[in-house]
Amino acid sequence: MKLNLECIPCFMRQALKASRFCRLGEKEQEKILREVMAVLLKERWDKTPPELAHVVHAVVRKYCGDPYGEIKRRSNELALKLYPDVKETVEKSGDPLKTAVKVAIAGNIIDFGAVDKDDVEEFNLMDFVRKVVNEELTVDHCELFKEKLETGESILYFADNAGEIVFDRILIETILSIKKFRVTFVVKAGPIINDATIEDARQVGLDRVVDEFRFISNGEVGVERNSPEVGRWIEEHDIVISKGQGNYEGLSEFSGIFYMLMVKCPVIARHIGVDVGSKVFLYK
Amino acid sequence: MKLNLECIPCFMRQALKASRFCRLGEKEQEKILREVMAVLLKERWDKTPPELAHVVHAVVRKYCGDPYGEIKRRSNELALKLYPDVKETVEKSGDPLKTAVKVAIAGNIIDFGAVDKDDVEEFNLMDFVRKVVNEELTVDHCELFKEKLETGESILYFADNAGEIVFDRILIETILSIKKFRVTFVVKAGPIINDATIEDARQVGLDRVVDEFRFISNGEVGVERNSPEVGRWIEEHDIVISKGQGNYEGLSEFSGIFYMLMVKCPVIARHIGVDVGSKVFLYK
Repeated sequence: MKLNLECIPCFMRQALKASRFCRLGEKEQEKILREVMAVLLKERWDKTPPELAHVVHAVVRKYCGDPYGEIKRRSNELALKLYPDVKETVEKSGDPLKTAVKVAIAGNIIDFGAVDKDDVEEFNLMDFVRKVVNEELTVDHCELFKEKLETGESILYFADNAGEIVFDRILIETILSIKKFRVTFVVKAGPIINDATIEDARQVGLDRVVDEFRFISNGEVGVERNSPEVGRWIEEHDIVISKGQGNYEGLSEFSGIFYMLMVKCPVIARHIGVDVGSKVFLYK
Repeated sequence: MKLNLECIPCFMRQALKASRFCRLGEKEQEKILREVMAVLLKERWDKTPPELAHVVHAVVRKYCGDPYGEIKRRSNELALKLYPDVKETVEKSGDPLKTAVKVAIAGNIIDFGAVDKDDVEEFNLMDFVRKVVNEELTVDHCELFKEKLETGESILYFADNAGEIVFDRILIETILSIKKFRVTFVVKAGPIINDATIEDARQVGLDRVVDEFRFISNGEVGVERNSPEVGRWIEEHDIVISKGQGNYEGLSEFSGIFYMLMVKCPVIARHIGVDVGSKVFLYK
């Protein structure tokens, strides 16, 4: 999906937020913002939002390193604490698979890029999970998902954020409790915002659940989402799951993907045809 | 008040919004956004937000002319239609002056810069006025205002938006019903966003109510708010009223001003120490 011009001020908001998050002074913040503007001016704007986000966050990394590293660890810890409760909610529900899908979508609320939330502990995550579990999804392609699971044998799973991946683990475990699948879990090849990396996946025990990890770009290392290589990964698997907005934006040229996301920005909302705040399980 | 770095992405959002408002194509919108970034990079960022907004909206004007001209006329018409009802609400209230202050603050909701509202008719303005009239203000220096009115003889009134100025007229008429004052009404010297100009003031009959008009800069013509000349205007008058966020930002180096505003952005909210959405009547 091509960048919307609204993404440009949003990138700058993200860069400012990150530079404040890592407690840089006003002067440094201004320097980052100016450099972000300069690199954005040098870029073509007909790329996908994640591609441009990469150049923006490369500037952030230059001055801040990995600003969200510590909070990613804490997000993982917090979500791990909820693991037993959430797992029980899924297992005791009338439709464990559908409940696990809702749980995985609810987990997508943990986000330090798209929304102006400063801490994962600012709101009660467990209350939020329960709320989403008891609501209908705005778009719900769960029946089709169940059909595909019946015949499929392999799953390619594009993860989004740290913390959230605990709920992805619960969804994958729920799927594996139905029957055996070969599961490939895709994380970022290096740090960007609070996106999950291999370290996060290991912290939450996903290395004991999935068969293989693959790596997409954080702008520095790894392959871009809209690359022929990622196209081959998608072809190699029977079922493709994509979490969050960034993957939705970056994978949109491919088809046959189950998107699970909380809709956080008006650009994505209009693209899908739903309101901001919607919980979406969309096959496309 | 010095620019906050959060204003920078906000300026870009404003420029994009204006370029869409005047129905420019995607290519032109990108051109404006890039040019806005380029001019912002050339500027020092230790100015007031309105000063930088001037260079931003100069770019907008170059491509769009006066994008909000037509909607300003309509805002004035809409507010004029409400004039009899609002006037009656003020006159029949237990405290007409305080009610007129609340009405003038409620009118500050008409804004196409700070908030993402596309049309003045999107919400029911009269309902909103009634709601504000029946609420307490978050900051309320009305008693001090009454005291100053008792001894004062002249008023300098910095207006904000078209439409809103109908409610300013009601406040001024209410003040003049107490006793005689020399009233100087300050509008923009030329078009910028939906800010009131002399044409707007005439459209709503303010030329028959006030004694004199003065003009502050839209970035092209007129004097800047934080200029020695405006300082002299303030000294020349006994009571100074300032409407809206732009005047709050631009006049902050002066003291002895009654600010009336709806708080629309987090930067101003933090500066005043209230929440976004607050209705404020602050003497400073």
